[in-house]
Amino acid sequence: MNVDGTHYRTIWVHPERPEVVQIIDQRDLPHRFVVEDLATVEAVGAAIADMHVRGAGLIGATAGYGMYVAGVTAPAGAADLLPHLRAAGDRLKATRPTAVNLAWAVERQLAAVQAAGGDRAAQLVTLRAEADAIADEDAEHCRRIGEHGVALFEAIAAKKSGQPVNVLTHCNAGWLAFVDYGSATAPIYAAFDRGIPVHVWVDETRPRNQGARLTAWELGQHGVPHTVIPDNVGGHLMQHGEVDLVITGTDRTTFTGDVANKIGTYLKALAAKDNGVPFYVALPSSTFDWEIEDGVRDIPIEQRGDEEVRYGRGWLDDAIREVRLTPPGSPTANFAFDVTPSRLVTGLITERGICAASAEGVYGLYPERRRG
Amino acid sequence: MNVDGTHYRTIWVHPERPEVVQIIDQRDLPHRFVVEDLATVEAVGAAIADMHVRGAGLIGATAGYGMYVAGVTAPAGAADLLPHLRAAGDRLKATRPTAVNLAWAVERQLAAVQAAGGDRAAQLVTLRAEADAIADEDAEHCRRIGEHGVALFEAIAAKKSGQPVNVLTHCNAGWLAFVDYGSATAPIYAAFDRGIPVHVWVDETRPRNQGARLTAWELGQHGVPHTVIPDNVGGHLMQHGEVDLVITGTDRTTFTGDVANKIGTYLKALAAKDNGVPFYVALPSSTFDWEIEDGVRDIPIEQRGDEEVRYGRGWLDDAIREVRLTPPGSPTANFAFDVTPSRLVTGLITERGICAASAEGVYGLYPERRRG
Repeated sequence: MNVDGTHYRTIWVHPERPEVVQIIDQRDLPHRFVVEDLATVEAVGAAIADMHVRGAGLIGATAGYGMYVAGVTAPAGAADLLPHLRAAGDRLKATRPTAVNLAWAVERQLAAVQAAGGDRAAQLVTLRAEADAIADEDAEHCRRIGEHGVALFEAIAAKKSGQPVNVLTHCNAGWLAFVDYGSATAPIYAAFDRGIPVHVWVDETRPRNQGARLTAWELGQHGVPHTVIPDNVGGHLMQHGEVDLVITGTDRTTFTGDVANKIGTYLKALAAKDNGVPFYVALPSSTFDWEIEDGVRDIPIEQRGDEEVRYGRGWLDDAIREVRLTPPGSPTANFAFDVTPSRLVTGLITERGICAASAEGVYGLYPERRRG
Repeated sequence: MNVDGTHYRTIWVHPERPEVVQIIDQRDLPHRFVVEDLATVEAVGAAIADMHVRGAGLIGATAGYGMYVAGVTAPAGAADLLPHLRAAGDRLKATRPTAVNLAWAVERQLAAVQAAGGDRAAQLVTLRAEADAIADEDAEHCRRIGEHGVALFEAIAAKKSGQPVNVLTHCNAGWLAFVDYGSATAPIYAAFDRGIPVHVWVDETRPRNQGARLTAWELGQHGVPHTVIPDNVGGHLMQHGEVDLVITGTDRTTFTGDVANKIGTYLKALAAKDNGVPFYVALPSSTFDWEIEDGVRDIPIEQRGDEEVRYGRGWLDDAIREVRLTPPGSPTANFAFDVTPSRLVTGLITERGICAASAEGVYGLYPERRRG
């Protein structure tokens, strides 16, 4: 994707110092664009733990490169890097224990290094190649989601005689959450890049404002027309024909099609159903939960700290500042996700194609996952 | 209602200086409690225009007292106050032209003074009595809404064996929007005052945060247990049985039962329907629109300024400050209201009782309004 006209991914190896990894520090976006050098495992761990990087795909890629950094910074005496890498992997995995892509990337690196044998030089080459492969696969999966999803835009555009296709999204399932393209945004970027007129309604997504801060910023950098709206607005827009299509991402989707995503997604799915607006969820298949059948009942919902609700966080006098919103004596609650039942989901957009939000639909694309 | 243990209305005549009216300046709530003296028509007009006071009932009462202030501050030479009062009324009506209660209160005062004859002293007595009557009627209508609505709480409490009745509300239809009690809050206060255990989920209500700022504050001052939540949360709570009842206010309700209220109300009504949660709307009958049949199609929806969406407004370093939330290049949209169709509304709570959200239901309570 483009930032100020230059192509970027969210993570890459420093072009002149191949022992250093670079990321976009997302904490100050959209107010300040900062590229950060990560030269130690500690720095990589802090970048994940303190959310300089976030999003399932990007956390996995960062862990992959973190293992590479662990290899290049290993003590000079170590002929076999494996013991050192195992310790580094444990440290990385502890930074955000619920992020499944994190452990997955660490284990994948350890297995690759083990397969490479006991030679340090070969192990380093393997670590670099595997980190690149994890990032490339993430980007490629998102690119394919875009290729499949763009058909939805083409079909709507064909009926709108030059009027923009209005798509609503919630939170940030954009390229900032992955290595490139994003999940929910991939079809939007693909449509825009092919010249289909597109306009995006961006839910601000209280309390952390990932829509207002991140989705709006990345769409703006890429030149995609968009409008930021409070989370309360989407229903009104759908009632009045101002939304042709909803696409969101997901943090976990059951093989039966129930979608856990950022809190508030369920309300938009209800409004879409009530107004006959198609509601799609875009995801790389790594996000499927192949065990849970009833997402509303069985997916655990994280509760986060009060301060995100009590305070509004933004830019004032060249710094991030927080203003108090609520009375000091008023308790608050902060549920991070909700679950949209499959009956409200028109379809799932995956790297293998679009399917119905049902076990039959999902197994149709992923037959190797079918249970006996 | 109580503030720091003392009974308050939102507007009253100064106890020692009967030519002065006092209000609670709501702009700095919940961070600072300020009582303001209004001694001139200009001050009353500014208090309405700059939203020191807001809410249909309170705007009407303030206009009523504004006409009284106009009378007591009339030039000494004027034997008949009417010409002076007409000019003052025009000035007040111009402060918020869409507030129907404002013009209504002004006209009611003018008619009362006209009926009182041409004597200045009698006119002043009339102005004071009529201002008090407007305020008292507003409070009495809200009190009756509470009396009728409390039955809903009693019925739910009877099934919960001591567990609190969980009610969700959106925006501020509280006593701060009226003279006392509020509309949506009246049944809550009535239940609480009778010892029924109650807990209120308070939608923060972006972008102006009337829930987080005003509803949370007034519930807290009165001692009612409550929790402030982002607007995205209500659907999740209803899915998990955490909401027994929704009550909102309304800015305009058609005689057919369609409800225009603060943006986002429609999304909560959809979630209530989807989860079998009763969804009630509380209103004094002055809020009915007796002409419009199809609210979704025909009620005009105000769009407000961008800055409410672009900025978060709150308390920092002992002052109200604003932090920027969105990228400078990102457009925003700010629809102030949405319309909830009557099919999603369980019932209307009015000063005459509870009725179905339909023309038959409304005419049943207000037969004098039935059209031929």
